[in-house]
Amino acid sequence: MKNNPIGIFDSGIGGLTIVKEIIKALPFESIIYLGDTARVPYGPRSKEVIAKFAKELAQFLLKRDVKCLVVACNTISATSLEEIVKISPVPVIGVVEPTIEAAVKTIRGKKIGVIGTAGTINSGVYEDKIGKLNKSIKVSVGACPLFVPLAEEGLGNHKATKIIAEGYLRGLKKKKIDTLILGCTHYPVLAATIQQIMGKQVKLVDSAKPTAQKLKQLLTEKELVTENRSPEYRFFVTDAPEKVIEVAGRFFGKGLDGNLAKINLPTL
Amino acid sequence: MKNNPIGIFDSGIGGLTIVKEIIKALPFESIIYLGDTARVPYGPRSKEVIAKFAKELAQFLLKRDVKCLVVACNTISATSLEEIVKISPVPVIGVVEPTIEAAVKTIRGKKIGVIGTAGTINSGVYEDKIGKLNKSIKVSVGACPLFVPLAEEGLGNHKATKIIAEGYLRGLKKKKIDTLILGCTHYPVLAATIQQIMGKQVKLVDSAKPTAQKLKQLLTEKELVTENRSPEYRFFVTDAPEKVIEVAGRFFGKGLDGNLAKINLPTL
Repeated sequence: MKNNPIGIFDSGIGGLTIVKEIIKALPFESIIYLGDTARVPYGPRSKEVIAKFAKELAQFLLKRDVKCLVVACNTISATSLEEIVKISPVPVIGVVEPTIEAAVKTIRGKKIGVIGTAGTINSGVYEDKIGKLNKSIKVSVGACPLFVPLAEEGLGNHKATKIIAEGYLRGLKKKKIDTLILGCTHYPVLAATIQQIMGKQVKLVDSAKPTAQKLKQLLTEKELVTENRSPEYRFFVTDAPEKVIEVAGRFFGKGLDGNLAKINLPTL
Repeated sequence: MKNNPIGIFDSGIGGLTIVKEIIKALPFESIIYLGDTARVPYGPRSKEVIAKFAKELAQFLLKRDVKCLVVACNTISATSLEEIVKISPVPVIGVVEPTIEAAVKTIRGKKIGVIGTAGTINSGVYEDKIGKLNKSIKVSVGACPLFVPLAEEGLGNHKATKIIAEGYLRGLKKKKIDTLILGCTHYPVLAATIQQIMGKQVKLVDSAKPTAQKLKQLLTEKELVTENRSPEYRFFVTDAPEKVIEVAGRFFGKGLDGNLAKINLPTL
């Protein structure tokens, strides 16, 4: 079991930012990644459809004997984590709880903001979970539906992105938050723009490092950390691997080393 | 057969702009519409995945005894029309040919521009088909991948949309085109912004009226026009009917009158 790979999945390729931090934190672990590029984005979809798609992705990885599942997508973690836990015989972690814990641990004031896709924000899960951890923290949220397409088009620092971001962030700025959770794996690509609008005094917290650290802690507790060995990385997508290689460079920072394959989706 | 409904499908709800014109042109025809809102958008996907999804949509309508199929989506029409024709026992029309015919018929000069999704533009179908119709016309194309999300977010006339559109249209403006085909059913929502950038002298041509007129001509030729009767309209989507009703207002101009249902997609 120890030597089995870690299974990581996402609606697309934003989750590769999480993979990058997991490789840093756990350099000997093998990884199987699945990105549903044929049906991305999940952000605007209903909870019912997100859960259905997400369970299909989890099943694909479970069939390949992963020792744990990492839900490297805020929208899936926010809407469907419990449903994945129900079908999984191995431990499951999402990105929401580790990110909240990291944000609450380092907060200086009492006001947290959260931005994410419509699916993530409508789930209400950030307000719920932060409230359970610390009742005195005020949580303000904002959906930013265009941030994912803007990030995928490489316009993270574009003038138009700044204008759109100013509109999305206006309400959060008025609330004088001290910490802002980037509740979507794509948003680090827009971090400079977001920081500029919110001001230097606002601390941005993203999911990548907190999730990698939480995973390391979980595997250590369960005695599932592999011994010193050479890791294998396998990446699967449901569409357009050649386009993924191009776009992944922006998130992953390096190539996918020829370990990328395409799998097929079901037929009606 | 005459009294069977017309089947119309799209990757999402942009195709409702075509439905609106079909109802005007053929007021006695019943219609079944299917929009794949669980997997929209198709624009950035590969030809292979677009064809697979599109054939599933066509099959759904064919099982419901439609007398013809209207592919109310440029991306599907540009990449997969032939594959749909192959599986269909009834006549099929897409939006590309009627739109090209309308544009070529009214052109004053010799330079046509075409904008569309990445899938549509990469297919090369507009250059091919315009070339076959009139070799002396010069065709310039441009992909506008952010226009669909901007339209769906209701930002057709937003300042940020104008900046993004200026970038997309710069090349076409330099070419001094006289006619611009809006090669995506979402783009009429951005028509004012596009017209302002391109200038009054450029004629914008969209798919809705030409496709409705072509369908009327086809049904007349095949003696498939229904007799004077009260039409039935049924709308199906694969996700989030409540959100569709809200967004559809921007395209369809009126409510869907309670005739909207949700169908399920296949499981892995």
